[in-house]
This record gives sequence, structure tokens and C-alpha cells, in this order.
Amino acid sequence: MADYVAPLQDMRFVLKDVIGLEAVNTLPPFAEVTEDVVDAILEEAGRFAHEVLSPLNAAGDRAGSVLKEGAVTTPAGFREAYQRFVAAGWGNMAVSADAGGQGLPMALANAAEEMWGSANIAFKLCPMLTLGAIEALHANASPELQERFLPRMVSGEWTGTMNLTEPQAGSDLSLVKSRATPQEDGTYRITGQKIFITYGEHDFTDNIVHTVLARIDGAPPGVKGISLFVVPKVQVGDDGSVGERNAVRCIAIEHKLGIRASPTAVLSYEGAVGHLVGKAHHGLEYMFIMMNAARLSVGLEGVSACERAYQAARAWARDRLQGKPAGIAGAGPLPIDRHPDVRRMLLTIKALGEASRALAYQAAVYVDRSRHHPDEAERRRCQALVDLLTPVVKGWSTEVGVEAASLGIQVHGGMGFIEETGAAQILRDARIATIYEGTTGIQANDLVGRKTAREGGRTMAELIARMQETASSLAGTPDRDLQAIGKRLGEGIGQLSSATRWIVDNAEARPLEIAAGAVAYLKLSGYVMGGWMMARAADVAVKKLAQGGGDVAFLEGKRATARFYAEQLLSQSAWLAQVVMHGGESVLVTDAALG
Amino acid sequence: MADYVAPLQDMRFVLKDVIGLEAVNTLPPFAEVTEDVVDAILEEAGRFAHEVLSPLNAAGDRAGSVLKEGAVTTPAGFREAYQRFVAAGWGNMAVSADAGGQGLPMALANAAEEMWGSANIAFKLCPMLTLGAIEALHANASPELQERFLPRMVSGEWTGTMNLTEPQAGSDLSLVKSRATPQEDGTYRITGQKIFITYGEHDFTDNIVHTVLARIDGAPPGVKGISLFVVPKVQVGDDGSVGERNAVRCIAIEHKLGIRASPTAVLSYEGAVGHLVGKAHHGLEYMFIMMNAARLSVGLEGVSACERAYQAARAWARDRLQGKPAGIAGAGPLPIDRHPDVRRMLLTIKALGEASRALAYQAAVYVDRSRHHPDEAERRRCQALVDLLTPVVKGWSTEVGVEAASLGIQVHGGMGFIEETGAAQILRDARIATIYEGTTGIQANDLVGRKTAREGGRTMAELIARMQETASSLAGTPDRDLQAIGKRLGEGIGQLSSATRWIVDNAEARPLEIAAGAVAYLKLSGYVMGGWMMARAADVAVKKLAQGGGDVAFLEGKRATARFYAEQLLSQSAWLAQVVMHGGESVLVTDAALG
Repeated sequence: MADYVAPLQDMRFVLKDVIGLEAVNTLPPFAEVTEDVVDAILEEAGRFAHEVLSPLNAAGDRAGSVLKEGAVTTPAGFREAYQRFVAAGWGNMAVSADAGGQGLPMALANAAEEMWGSANIAFKLCPMLTLGAIEALHANASPELQERFLPRMVSGEWTGTMNLTEPQAGSDLSLVKSRATPQEDGTYRITGQKIFITYGEHDFTDNIVHTVLARIDGAPPGVKGISLFVVPKVQVGDDGSVGERNAVRCIAIEHKLGIRASPTAVLSYEGAVGHLVGKAHHGLEYMFIMMNAARLSVGLEGVSACERAYQAARAWARDRLQGKPAGIAGAGPLPIDRHPDVRRMLLTIKALGEASRALAYQAAVYVDRSRHHPDEAERRRCQALVDLLTPVVKGWSTEVGVEAASLGIQVHGGMGFIEETGAAQILRDARIATIYEGTTGIQANDLVGRKTAREGGRTMAELIARMQETASSLAGTPDRDLQAIGKRLGEGIGQLSSATRWIVDNAEARPLEIAAGAVAYLKLSGYVMGGWMMARAADVAVKKLAQGGGDVAFLEGKRATARFYAEQLLSQSAWLAQVVMHGGESVLVTDAALG
Repeated sequence: MADYVAPLQDMRFVLKDVIGLEAVNTLPPFAEVTEDVVDAILEEAGRFAHEVLSPLNAAGDRAGSVLKEGAVTTPAGFREAYQRFVAAGWGNMAVSADAGGQGLPMALANAAEEMWGSANIAFKLCPMLTLGAIEALHANASPELQERFLPRMVSGEWTGTMNLTEPQAGSDLSLVKSRATPQEDGTYRITGQKIFITYGEHDFTDNIVHTVLARIDGAPPGVKGISLFVVPKVQVGDDGSVGERNAVRCIAIEHKLGIRASPTAVLSYEGAVGHLVGKAHHGLEYMFIMMNAARLSVGLEGVSACERAYQAARAWARDRLQGKPAGIAGAGPLPIDRHPDVRRMLLTIKALGEASRALAYQAAVYVDRSRHHPDEAERRRCQALVDLLTPVVKGWSTEVGVEAASLGIQVHGGMGFIEETGAAQILRDARIATIYEGTTGIQANDLVGRKTAREGGRTMAELIARMQETASSLAGTPDRDLQAIGKRLGEGIGQLSSATRWIVDNAEARPLEIAAGAVAYLKLSGYVMGGWMMARAADVAVKKLAQGGGDVAFLEGKRATARFYAEQLLSQSAWLAQVVMHGGESVLVTDAALG
């Protein structure tokens, strides 16, 4: 498989032409983020992804990380790539300046993160988890703890992890059993076993800063008795000096379907010295703040999978000569991209990638505005949109990422099943993204519950109104494609609107039926919101085409892909809404149905 | 993962109660296939699958087959399992008596084949390919060649292969380049390279009988110049004596995403002695007869994947305690099968498995009737149904098999991504089935072209009429579930009917648009036909419940699963029909859209 090349043209188009850079660089801290700056950063990131990360991807998968006597060796080249990554400043782009980061917009950092994910998802997980740990400490830890750990995490000298899961506590963190015993010096001794710890042990850096959920002795049961601790692999003195090895051991790493280069550790805490972060018993609350950011990151992994799958399938379909579709004149085998069904698959992958990208970047822009807009009302409004979009970006984008990766194999035919081609690795790597940081089901329950029903569907209604404006304006244009797109978008919005009303109306009386239709509602939301972004992109493309100039092929491609999306994918809205509103009863049947 | 247990109850229910054994045992050769015989055979097959094949499945995947100096070593236990398999007579159940087989109905053999596929798909491929080769020789080879090779293939002493694909010739066999040079003694020397040869080399038996497509020197180009040859690994004299090693070598085996225990060979023919099968230049025709049978077999692999995924996910969801859904009273974590979304996933897997099973068995019954019904008109009618159903069973069942396997991982949460659980292997193994023996796209083109448009939609209309009877009769029952099922089935049939008419009407004028919607039409056909089988099953279940007696939980489960299928899955018919009839234009856009 050819090395990954960042889709800079589409990334720029989304950020600058569809969303508009002014949504970000009118915010006080980002005044200097001009078009030129954006171009320069995207280009540099693209080069790094292409030249450094992508070439390690297949070999990393083959070699995997290896555990020997408690020490993990990552695949050849990964350690050096990490050094170059942090040296080039990629590790702290969006970390705020007061925490020692570069304070760039999340929208821009997300574009770069999409690239890392496409080029080498197993590598990308290390900086992603480190960012989560940085955020948790920056927001909640005492100034002293921050001083002790943050600078070397922000610089990349040390990495960070998130330790939530235990064998009996996965989606349900109320079941966490790890214990924290207070010591006279104010520290705690942490004891317990944590599993699924991404980069919980590795050879990139000399130290690893674990953030760990545990119960202080005597704490209440359930979610309200869980606290957050920072537990470094190697202890760090008050003065920042590096001390003894802490009592935390990597006792196993998992043999996984994908992301094999990334070590997924089982960590045994055996009275390790830990420091309480923030207040006792508030651990889950702190962790959720961090997880929400991580969820947008994992959502981007769906985008990354679509893009990588598209590049691989596109290249294969252009070169592979096979058959001649009925209805095309002339002799001899043709490239398979001339076969309508192959074209349908390619367009599906491309459309899913472009829609999920645009939606993820839009969410990132709302993040930036929720943090930095001078007007508090706008900050609150944008925060509500971030809250609403987070489960959609996480849940829907990763689901379509898996679908795209599987279609990518299909385009390759028999060669897609052979590991050398690389198509299979894309699926293997993508398959985890609908699971970690909260499964699609968990995202969907969050969407229908906290994000929709609890507030009477207010934010969704606001977004629907905004989407309806786009649909209406397209319906009135003379362009035939835009009309078709506007029509489908309008229908999808209507279905989303009905399903939303149904959820709000039935939230109290029928919680189980709502839960049964939650994933259908999440998918409906994703397809409609993705359709909205595609419609806006097509609208901009048509305007630019009318003005003349610009890359005509690219712009026509945007319009055509948006129409394809509207007619082939968005058109499932009525079915999904139907499942939301009428499918619940058939799910909640007696146990007999399951056998 | 627990070992596979054959779903005997559902298999019996489908064969005996839904389809009715009389459809088979009223055929002259099958008069002795009574209920008791069916029960005994299914039970024995289930025991073999459970005790012999299933325990080798995970270890076989881990070890894979290994090539060393031209010889392939299959994973530990596989060779012995093969000996037991053929000794027990499982290798030639449905081979006709005049070819030395047991002459049992295809419907029964398919049930057993489903079990082999669930228990150990990598193993199952060897007998499956052997059956294909037996069929090709039995139907087309001279009595002398049959005498020389068939008895030891039918007994399982030797295995068989199908050699079609070459590096440049995959879906498009007109590109086959392997050459056959006539010799004075009437044999040919075969030269060329064949790839993707399942069990092309192994250690089960002393000899392997390859059936090979090649061009006789001077043959016309394209599909009309291809002949079929039998090329044994070890030469066999006129008198049946085993002679010298033939000039065919295994030069590589593939490193694959799944079915890793099965060796997928690259075979180099270097002037190997081959015997012409049937007439020169008719090779593709012979091969297609064999491939059509193989396609139904591969379709069963989709059923097998659903069943195995269901058993694994069901067991996991019953044991795993996690969380408590909103709306369920009482404290403490519950098994995750109490969570509506997990239940939705389980029911989806179960419904897809039951629908695809019933449809595949129905197709097999049509095969039996097409071969053995005394009335020629009925034979022809059933053959037309087999022709129509083959691409649907192959294409749709394997697509839903992949979906079910992926959902199976999702039910497991993070543990689904860890290879020890076995859930990931089900997906890895299932992923090939939508590709080999003709991709889903190839099946769909066959369905819309040869099987629908070419005959003016006659057979589809006949099937639609038959399905409509079921829908109408359900609509008139007092049972609320049956009414709902009948309603959805009626809607689905209406959509299938419209889409069929559109295809027939536009076959000449818009072949590319039809090809663009072909997979949607195949899925529409699969969901509707599967829905028909589910509706019939529910109808029988309700009648039996009314009569009293029987396994109430099982029968209620059939009804509830059928309703779930109708409301959650069959309800996508309108969308699919829409894509068939209106989606083509958006696929056939300019190349610009693909970038």
C-alpha cells in the first residue's frame, strides 16, 4: 500500500471555505492564525505524517509491541518517531499557553490529529492519551502537582495514560475496585489491577505519568466514591528530581485484532505512591471531562480510517484492470474504477470520509468558541453544541470508519484479504474505535439521555433550525445537484425532528424503548448532520465554480460527492427514524427471543 | 470462547416445520429420508462439529498452515480431523449414488455444511472444494477419467481443488493465460501460475486432484478459448496406479486476514501432465456449473458466521455484569443482555442468522427438486428458482455474516478486540466470504442481469407472488405480531416489485445505472426473501403455540425474532429500492468526483 498523503485540499476547504476561518481567528487568542499559518501548519503536519509515521505503519503492525521482563519494546522506528514528533512540537499544539503548550485552535490540532490517525493510528494513541492526562491535571490538580508533572508531559519528555478499566469494570466505572490508602505524608498507596491501558508501558520515554481511578479507603460505593490519582512510573520528588521506580508493573500486554504496535497494558498497582488530583471522590467527574475531549479524538479516528481506506482503494481501483461493464463500448479490460459497483463503493468511502471530517472539524470549532469567545452566551451556546456533537462524532464517525474500511477491502477483491496489501490492517485498526472511550451504545445513550431528553431537545432544535436554513436555501437554487441535495437534507431533517420530538415526549414513560432505539437515533443524527456539512460544502463549491477559477475538478467532485451522499446514504433517514420511534417494542421482548 | 454447539432445534424447525420435509422426501431418491433419519444425521453432524472441529478452530488460527520446501503442514489436529471426517462419511453426503456418494438431499447436506462452517471454517473449505471438483468431473469428464480419479476423491482418499485465478485474472476469467500444450499421447502439458488456490497444497492426503483452467495452444482469446483440465499432484496411471510427482509446485501460501489454518496456495505449473475434461474450449462453462454449487456453499458461510457470532455474543452477554439501564428498578449491575442496545445487537445477529439459514435451506430444497422431481416442469421451475436464489444466498448471506460478526465483537466490548476471546476471529474468517467465488458486486450483476432482466423478471415475479400469499395470509390473522410482520413483508415485497419492474424496463437503455444499483437490489432481495422465511417461521410458531405442546420458549422466540427482523431490518426496503431506482445517476458521475 502506498504511503499516506494528507488530503490537504479538502482539509483547507472545510476549514477555510465551508466553516470559515473567521469562526476561529476572530477569537482573541487565535488572531494570528491566518490562512497562511493554517496552510503552513497543515503542510508540515502532512509531511510528517507522510514521511515519518506512515512508513512505520505496516511494519509496526507486523512486529507489534513486545513485553519482556516487565519492559515493553515498541516496533523499530517508533521510539525515534516519537522523539521527532515531540521535538517538532506536534505533541502540544492545542495545549493552552498557560500550561506551556502552543495554544493553537482545536480545529487545527484536529486536522493534524486526523493525519496521525490515518498515517499510523497505533502511534497516534500515545500523544492522544498524553493530552488527556495533561488536560485532567491542568484542570484539576493542585499547582504543586501541576508544577511537578505538567512541564515534562507538555514537552513530551514524559507521556501520560488514563487508567479507568478493571476486569470487572468496563463501561460501568461504578464497579472500580482499586484502592487508595492515605499515608501520613499526604500521598496514597494505590493497589489494584487496571486493564486496557494504552501505552501503559513503553520505551519512548523514561517516565510515564499514570492518571488512575481508585477508591480511598472508606469511600462510599458506586460512582461517588471514586477519586483520581496521579501515579508516575518513576517517582518524582517535590523538587522535580527523578527518584525510585514506583510499585506499578506491566504484567501483560494484549494480543489484539489491530493497533498492534501500540502496547495495551495490564498494570498491577502494588502499593504504588499516588497523589490525589483535586478533591477526593470527584474522580469520575474529572475523568469525564478528559474523556469528552478524548471522545472527539477517537471520533477523528473514524475520519482517519475513511481517508486511509479511500486512498488505498482509490489507488488499487485505478490500476487494477479487470472486466468490462455491460454498457461501455470498446474492447479490453478496464480499470475497475470504471465498474459502477466499484465506483459506488469508492464514492461511499469518500463521502463518509468527507462528511465525518467536516462534522468533526465543525465540532472542534465549537470547542474553540466555547472556550475563547468573548461573549458568555456564545460560549455557553457553543458548549451545548459540543456536548451534543461529541457522542455523534465519536459514535457515528467510528461506525462509518469501520464500514469504509470494510468496503476498502471489498474494492481490493481477493487481494484485500491478503495482509501485504494493507487494506485488512485498516479494518483491524479501525475496529476498536467503536468500542474504546465508550462504545457506540454508550454514546447513543448519552445522546438520547443527557444531551437530548434532559434538556427537552433544546440544543438539537437549535441545530435543526440552523440545518433547515441550509436545506431551504439549497432548495431555492437553480443548480440541479444542489436542489436534489437540499431536498434530501430537508427530508432527513424532518425525520430527525420527528425522532427528537418522540424521544423528548417519551423520555419519562418509555426509557427502555428509547434506549433500544438510541443507536438508530445516533446514526440518524450522524447522517443528517454529515449531510448538512456536505450540503454546505456543495453550496460553496457551486458558488466558486460560478465565479470561475479554483480547482474545477475538485469543486465538481465536492458537488458530486455531496449528491451521492444525499441520495445513497442520507436517504436512509426515514428507516432510521422509524426504528427509533417504532422499533423499541420488538427489542424489549421476553428473554425467550434470545434463546 | 465456548465450543460451538449446533443449533439443531432451529435447523429441524426450518427443515421440517417451515419448509416441510415432504418437499424433499417425496422425491424418488429420498423416500427413506424420514424425520428420524434427518434427526439422527443432524445430531451426529452436530456432535462431530462440536467434538472434533470446533476445538481446533482457535489453535488452527493461531498456528496457521506453514510452507516449507514446497510442503505445507496444516495446524496440529487438522490432518487427523480430516481422516475422521471422511471415515465418518461426511465428505460425500450429497454426492450422487452413481458417483459413489451417499446421495442424500442437498438440504440435509447443507445443514451439516453450515455446522462445519460455524465450527471451523478453515477446515470446511477442503471438503467444499473437493465437492466442487468431484461435481465438475462427474458432470463433464470422460468415463475413463472419472474412473481414474473420482472414486478416491469421493472416498476422501484424495482431495480436489479449483484453479481459476491468476495474478491478472480474478473476477475476469477471460484474462486467463495458463497454457496447455497437446502431447502425442492425448495428454497436455500445463504451464502457468495460479493464485488463491484453497488447499492447493496440504498434508491431509497423498494426492491432490487439481481442476485447472488453461488455454490450449492456438485457442481463441477471451472466454471461448478456455478449457478445463484435471492435473493431479501425483500422476495416476490408466490402471489407477500412483506414479511420479507431477510438475506442479506450491511456491507460496498467503498471509491472510482470516481462515489462516487453510493454506491458500500459489501454484506453479511447469509442464505438468494434465487431462482435458470434456470438450476443448468449454472450460468456463463447466467451471461455472461447479461455481454455482460452490456459491450456495459460500452463502452458507454467512449463516455459519451469524450462528457462531450469536453463540459467542449470547454467552458473553449473559455472563458479563455491567451497569443498569435507566428504567429498570433494583440495585446492582445486571448482565449486559438486559441493556436494550445489547439486546438489539443480539437480536440483530440472531435474526440475520435465522433468516439467512432458512433462505439457504429453501434454496437447497429447490436444488433437490430441480434434480429429482419426476415432473419436468417442476424441475425447470425449481432450477429457475435456484438460479435466482444463488446470487442472493451467496451475496446477501455473506454480507450479513460480516455484519453479524462485527456486531458480535461489539457485544463483547473491549474484550471483543482481544484475540483470546475468539470474537475477532469470527470476523476475520467471515470477511473473505463476500469476496471469493464471486464478489458481492459480481453476484449482484448476475442477479440484475442474467437472473432478472434477461428473462423479463419472470422468476422473480413468480417468487414475489408466492411471498405475497404469505404476507396476505398473515395480514388476516388475529395475532398482533403476525399482523405487524405481514404488513412489513407486504411493504418490502411492494418495494422489491417496483425495483424489479424498473430493472426490467430499463435493462436496455440504462445498463450502467442498473449496475450501479445492483448491490442495493441484491440486498433488497435478501432482506425481503429472508423476511418471507421469517414470516413463514413465525406463522408456524404461532400455530404450534395455539395447538399447545412444543417448546413454548423456542416458538415464542421465533415469533419475536421474526417481528424484530420485520421492524428493524426489513423496514429498510424503501431505502434500498430508492437507491436502485434513483441512485444510479449519482454513481455515474465524472471522474472528478473520485479525485
